[in-house]
Amino acid sequence: MSLVVIGSVAYDAIETPHGKRERTLGGSCSYIALAASYFAQPSIVAVVGDDFAPEDKMVLHSKGVDLRGLETVPGKTFFWSGVYPADMNDRKTLVTDLNVFADFDPKLPAAYVNYPYLFLGNIQPSLQRKVQQQMPSLRFVGGDTMNFWISGNKPELLETIRHWDFLLINDSEAKMLAEENNLRKAAEKILAMGPNTLVIKRGEYGAMLFRKDTLFMVPGYLLEDVFDPTGAGDCFAGGFVGYLAERGFDLRNGNFDVTELHRAVIYGSVMGSFCCEEFGVERFRNLTRKEIDQRFDEFRRFTAF
Amino acid sequence: MSLVVIGSVAYDAIETPHGKRERTLGGSCSYIALAASYFAQPSIVAVVGDDFAPEDKMVLHSKGVDLRGLETVPGKTFFWSGVYPADMNDRKTLVTDLNVFADFDPKLPAAYVNYPYLFLGNIQPSLQRKVQQQMPSLRFVGGDTMNFWISGNKPELLETIRHWDFLLINDSEAKMLAEENNLRKAAEKILAMGPNTLVIKRGEYGAMLFRKDTLFMVPGYLLEDVFDPTGAGDCFAGGFVGYLAERGFDLRNGNFDVTELHRAVIYGSVMGSFCCEEFGVERFRNLTRKEIDQRFDEFRRFTAF
Repeated sequence: MSLVVIGSVAYDAIETPHGKRERTLGGSCSYIALAASYFAQPSIVAVVGDDFAPEDKMVLHSKGVDLRGLETVPGKTFFWSGVYPADMNDRKTLVTDLNVFADFDPKLPAAYVNYPYLFLGNIQPSLQRKVQQQMPSLRFVGGDTMNFWISGNKPELLETIRHWDFLLINDSEAKMLAEENNLRKAAEKILAMGPNTLVIKRGEYGAMLFRKDTLFMVPGYLLEDVFDPTGAGDCFAGGFVGYLAERGFDLRNGNFDVTELHRAVIYGSVMGSFCCEEFGVERFRNLTRKEIDQRFDEFRRFTAF
Repeated sequence: MSLVVIGSVAYDAIETPHGKRERTLGGSCSYIALAASYFAQPSIVAVVGDDFAPEDKMVLHSKGVDLRGLETVPGKTFFWSGVYPADMNDRKTLVTDLNVFADFDPKLPAAYVNYPYLFLGNIQPSLQRKVQQQMPSLRFVGGDTMNFWISGNKPELLETIRHWDFLLINDSEAKMLAEENNLRKAAEKILAMGPNTLVIKRGEYGAMLFRKDTLFMVPGYLLEDVFDPTGAGDCFAGGFVGYLAERGFDLRNGNFDVTELHRAVIYGSVMGSFCCEEFGVERFRNLTRKEIDQRFDEFRRFTAF
C-alpha cells in the first residue's frame, strides 16, 4: 500500500561515545521512509540541494522508496550536527543549517494524489495542511510536529491537526501542546483537538497510544548498546504507519480492531530500537523483515505476565 | 505467610501541588508493610521515639501488621520533610532529622526467627546482614539500598547483597552500583554480584525484572492525578514481596514459574500507583484487595497486543 511521507532529507554530522560520522544521510523523511519500507511502499516529498550524492539517493531507492517527489534545487542540502554525551539522553545540537529546506514548498507529484496514506513529518503546519488538501482519497493522515510550531504557530498548528486521524509526538511536546503536565489529562485534551488517535513517544521509556476507547502502553526495548539514537523517533513513526498501511487500515471511516493499533505501536518501537544499533541510517543496509518480526516476538515475551 | 520487614518508621511533612501535610506517618517500613499487608502478614522491625502516636500504631495494627518488633526508645521519631514541584519528578528534601533512627540496631523478636520471608529496607548494609544471619529458614531474602551506601560503603554493601535472592533498586542506583550507564549491561553485572533476581524501579516509567533466564518490563500506570509520590517505591516493594509471600514462593531453592515473578512486578506497580493517589499512607485507609486485583487486570488490558 502506498504511503506518502513528507519531511526533511538531510546530511548529519553525529558524534556519540561510540564514534562519529562527518556526513551521513539523515532527516526525518529519510528515516521514516526507510523504516516504513519494510511494510509498505513509501513515496516521499522532500527537497535536497545540488550537493546531494547519487549514492544517498540509491540508499532510498534500493529499499523501494518512490523518489518522484524528491526535488533537487540549487544550493546546499539541510545540514544538522549534534553530539551525544555518555548517557545519551541529552544531545547537544551544534549546527542547524536549513539551507534549501528553509524554502521547502512540498509539491505533490500527480501520481501520489490518490494514494490512501499520508504521514506529515515535522514541517510548517500550513504546509502540512496544503499537502493534505490535495489528497481526496485518504484512509488515514497523521503527523508529527515540534516545540517550535507549538509555541510559535499554535493557531495554525491546531487548524492543521484538527483534520488528522492521528498525532505522533513526544511526551514533552504533548504536555506543551495541551498545557498540562499530567500525561493522561494532556492526552484527553489533545484527543479533543481533532485526532482520534494519539501516540506519545517517550524515547528509552517506550510509547503510549491513547484513544477514547483504548489506552495502550509499551516499555522501551532495552538495547545492549545504543550506538546512535538519531532518527529513532522517526523510525518509530515509520514502523507505526508502515504497519498500518500494510494492514490496509482505515482510521478515517473506522471499524477496525484496536489491537492492530497496539501492534503498530510495537512495530514502531521495534524500528526505533533497530535504528539505535548503528550510526544514522546504517542499520537499514542489512536489516531484514525476519529480524523485525523476531524482535516483535521478543516484545511479547518481555511484557507477558 | 509471614514476611519480616526491616526499615524506617517516620513522620513526614509533605507539600505537593495538591496540598500539604504537616506530620503524617511515613518511613520505608510503614509503606512496605502496609502495601504487603494485602497479600501476607508483615512483621516489622523498626524503631520510633516516645513521641510516636498511638493512632499511628493503630494504622499499622489495623492492617494486621505484627508490631512486636517495633521498639520505642526515648527521643524523637525520624522526621523527613520534602516539597514536590508541578511536574512531580524532582522532589526537594527540606529536612532529614534521623533522631532515634540514627542509632537503630534492629532486634529480631524470637517469634520472627523462623519466618520464611525477609525484606531488608534501606538501612546500613552491615545491619541488614546481621538480621539475615539470625534467620535460618529463609525461602527468600532481598532488599533495597541507596546511593549513600553505594558510594560510601560499597565493600560492605557487596558482602551483604551477595547473600540476597533479589535486589530491588531504582535505575540511577543500579547504574551507580554497576558503574555502567547501559541498564542491560548494568543488570548483568549486578546479577553477577549474588542476587539471582534484580528488580529495577523507574518511577513513572515503570519497572523491569532481570534474571539470567528472563527479562520482564512493565510501563508505569498512568494516573489521572498524582497527589503525592512519597513512598511509591516502597509500596512497589511491598506489593512485590507481599505477592511472592502469598504464593509461598521459594526463590532460594528455585523450581518455580518465572511468570509469577512477572506478576509480582505488576502487583508492585499496582501498589505503587495506589500510593500516589492520596497523601502519605492515606490511600491504605480504604483500599481493598478487589481494587488491587482490578488494577492488575487493567495492566493486562493496557499492555496486551
